[in-house]
Amino acid sequence: MNGAESLVRTMAASGIDVCFANPGTSEMHFVAALDRLDLIRCVLALQENVATGAADAYARMTGEPAATLLHLGPGFGNGLANVHNAKKARAPMVNVVGEHATYHIEYDAPLTSDIQGIVGPVSDFVVTTNSPDDVGTDTAATVAAAKSWPGKIATLILPANSAWDTTEKVGKPQQPDGPEPVNADDVAAVAEALKSGKKAVIFVSGAILEEPALTNLGKVKAATGVDLLAQTSNRRIDRGAGRVAVNKLPYPVDHALETLKDYEYVILLGTREPVSFFAYPNKPSRLSPDGSEILNLAGPQQDTVKALDMLIDLLGAGNAEPELVEAEPAPDVSGLSGEITPEIISQAFRAHMPEDCIIVDESITTGRAFFPDSKAAPPHTWLQNTGGAIGVGLPYAVGAAIACPDRPVMVLQSDGSGMYCNQALWTMARENLNVTVLIFSNRAYRILEGEMKGVGVEKMGHVAENLFGLNKPDIDWVGLSKSMGVDAERVDDASGLSPAIQKGLALKGPYLIEIVF
Amino acid sequence: MNGAESLVRTMAASGIDVCFANPGTSEMHFVAALDRLDLIRCVLALQENVATGAADAYARMTGEPAATLLHLGPGFGNGLANVHNAKKARAPMVNVVGEHATYHIEYDAPLTSDIQGIVGPVSDFVVTTNSPDDVGTDTAATVAAAKSWPGKIATLILPANSAWDTTEKVGKPQQPDGPEPVNADDVAAVAEALKSGKKAVIFVSGAILEEPALTNLGKVKAATGVDLLAQTSNRRIDRGAGRVAVNKLPYPVDHALETLKDYEYVILLGTREPVSFFAYPNKPSRLSPDGSEILNLAGPQQDTVKALDMLIDLLGAGNAEPELVEAEPAPDVSGLSGEITPEIISQAFRAHMPEDCIIVDESITTGRAFFPDSKAAPPHTWLQNTGGAIGVGLPYAVGAAIACPDRPVMVLQSDGSGMYCNQALWTMARENLNVTVLIFSNRAYRILEGEMKGVGVEKMGHVAENLFGLNKPDIDWVGLSKSMGVDAERVDDASGLSPAIQKGLALKGPYLIEIVF
Repeated sequence: MNGAESLVRTMAASGIDVCFANPGTSEMHFVAALDRLDLIRCVLALQENVATGAADAYARMTGEPAATLLHLGPGFGNGLANVHNAKKARAPMVNVVGEHATYHIEYDAPLTSDIQGIVGPVSDFVVTTNSPDDVGTDTAATVAAAKSWPGKIATLILPANSAWDTTEKVGKPQQPDGPEPVNADDVAAVAEALKSGKKAVIFVSGAILEEPALTNLGKVKAATGVDLLAQTSNRRIDRGAGRVAVNKLPYPVDHALETLKDYEYVILLGTREPVSFFAYPNKPSRLSPDGSEILNLAGPQQDTVKALDMLIDLLGAGNAEPELVEAEPAPDVSGLSGEITPEIISQAFRAHMPEDCIIVDESITTGRAFFPDSKAAPPHTWLQNTGGAIGVGLPYAVGAAIACPDRPVMVLQSDGSGMYCNQALWTMARENLNVTVLIFSNRAYRILEGEMKGVGVEKMGHVAENLFGLNKPDIDWVGLSKSMGVDAERVDDASGLSPAIQKGLALKGPYLIEIVF
Repeated sequence: MNGAESLVRTMAASGIDVCFANPGTSEMHFVAALDRLDLIRCVLALQENVATGAADAYARMTGEPAATLLHLGPGFGNGLANVHNAKKARAPMVNVVGEHATYHIEYDAPLTSDIQGIVGPVSDFVVTTNSPDDVGTDTAATVAAAKSWPGKIATLILPANSAWDTTEKVGKPQQPDGPEPVNADDVAAVAEALKSGKKAVIFVSGAILEEPALTNLGKVKAATGVDLLAQTSNRRIDRGAGRVAVNKLPYPVDHALETLKDYEYVILLGTREPVSFFAYPNKPSRLSPDGSEILNLAGPQQDTVKALDMLIDLLGAGNAEPELVEAEPAPDVSGLSGEITPEIISQAFRAHMPEDCIIVDESITTGRAFFPDSKAAPPHTWLQNTGGAIGVGLPYAVGAAIACPDRPVMVLQSDGSGMYCNQALWTMARENLNVTVLIFSNRAYRILEGEMKGVGVEKMGHVAENLFGLNKPDIDWVGLSKSMGVDAERVDDASGLSPAIQKGLALKGPYLIEIVF
């Protein structure tokens, strides 16, 4: 057995089932070991940000980390943005980054780089394996680190000679770290606040937005009348008919301030206090109203699920009946025609959402109505960009579809962001993933026009127009999609929306709809 | 004036003419200042690795840095791989990376990251500008750092409030650091070695491979009989008819060892000793033969041009007549037909190379004959991937074409690498760049099949086949190219090569030829 085989055996024993990969020469022994042992499913990505984004979504949907296989420092660099997003999601991920043989590093060959330096800022755990005998233990530690509460980015750097030299050691699976304990005084303070009759909101993210904890959150609301509000962007929200509804804090600062302005208590559960996405001149970073009190029920590193249980006990809310969303029939969209607007897209999308679908939302400006409009749709799961680095939609769809082959995946994708990782379409075709992609082809970085005003710049000149415009030339998303093997069509009249979405959902494999408006 | 305007004024005064950009909210004031002042040409890239690759090639062709405009840590991360390549090329580059307003960083908003940590491993110089009054001085220092010999990666991190708050200060252009001095004893030792009658080679990279230093290199050869050998990958080589020919060290280790085996002296000029690109089991990292003596004429940080002048003086070679390549007529390719092979592509490419063209070579396995076959072509410039992070071909073409609008650019592009930054095609169309792209569509990461054997793995199973294959589905490069506005055609018979290349070269704007073989 060589080190690479020890790596594969240890990963498989530790529960790694899937590896999103773009390997190179320094990873050849790892590839050979994957080949011989056939314990882990390998999915090829044509650019590393597809691999890391897919691994993030896979983890969000299964609760377990996938592995990525990346080629030295620059290979990790190509995938860094989606590792950043995963870190902000607190999603578990195991990155295996190849390195030159240890004795080769001093020669500063072209691909030599400071890999530890490159991976460090977006990893919670990093280890470099410097002998084949260490591979097993280091791998087990890496997977355990990834699985530690609430989900960590764990990166193993594997020098080529650690992979190809022999060893007899396979790593034993290690126990991940659990959450930090809940502070009973914090829970008591929250219970008091909720009984005070003052206006309060639970500001929440993380595991509480998923079943079964979500129902407990509804019990607290039912017992106390507290409002529920999720972060603007979240790892995952289970929602729809039969579930507890949680709104999200709006992205625009003024809307967010308006949403929060009357609260006397802002209670944090699995997140930090509400802050604006960006700073703007003469607008606050902190969004809680002046004079409000911020109470920490449990932070992201603490056992949020248990904190909620303890709160329910203190409130005597165990038998409270949470208000569940009543199913509403799909809107009748048979008569849609004429000009396409974001509102009409939202109706058409909502009308056809299948039961148990997974929605990947990178719709930016087009999509602000999608979330509220789909509140009473059939039960579904909503995935968002948690780190603000654009280019997640298509990679997330790959990971979610591989994680949940029986659940249809729909991608709400703005055009500018979609171009970042367009290579993900090819993986969708290759793996015949059940994905329907809606591209919102407004042919601009539309959000930047608003942001320009938001930072106080009123007048847009030709340089800004040039930097914000995705026209000249228009991108032909149908041609782009077909070029990578994903069938596609273009819709430029509202009458075409429903038939296109129905066609996409009926297909077993991927389908892309370019919506021009 | 605000800090952003100070930045633009200082950059322009320091000689920055072009900015390859993908901005976001935190860079809006910079965009507004670029707009108001209109001193710097802005070129939009749809993914940051296009921007950084283009800036690298722009610098290689002009000798001056371009700027990049990148959106926080993840935006830099997206462009990190091509910054790595530029660093290995020792190409000058000025990166402007937006950051949250300083007071906003502590709130850990979604896009907050350790920007200094992310940029550090691939930057030679980093400064964070923490007040608008510092912007001018910091910018001047950044540009000067980039221009320092032999070319540096200089990164300015610009918090949004440093950009939007007012200042009266514009930076004065600063003097870049020149090269480190040459050691006269080193030059004398090399002169002695060259007079010894022992077999010697000058192993060279950097500025010496460009005119006018290249001709001086030829004088040393003419006077002493020394062989000339460039690194495997170089920033830029000026070559063709009427110039001094310099071969390159082959990439495969066995070929490289064979090339070097008889040398008693290996003389370094602008590079380090020859080493293999990767380590392989039971093969050496160092490629110079045992018992050879390695002499350093001048390292990359030293004044290599002056060292060569000093050597010529010591050798009395000032009047030596360098051997210049005699022009050879283009091969007759009118009769090509039938199966396409790399050799036939090489002939067709060579036959149509225009005078003064710029060749961007990311041809990997397909292209091993291209360089020798084009030795006696009309004078031209050859650009290579210096850092081994694939995905340079299309971005380099953007930068080279913007740097030299009067010189036709030809891209020799393997398909796997080309997919990495396919978004560069859109920028080619938008800017109507004079680029002809040849895609070598062998539908595999072909090099990895060889590398697998190279590291000692003989048997390839279905996992490796899956990870190395770019078929299933085939990528339709013609459709992909047209979807981004670049006209294209497919050639799958040798008879089609010449007409397609002629058509591409005749067009003023970009054209792509997918060569399927």
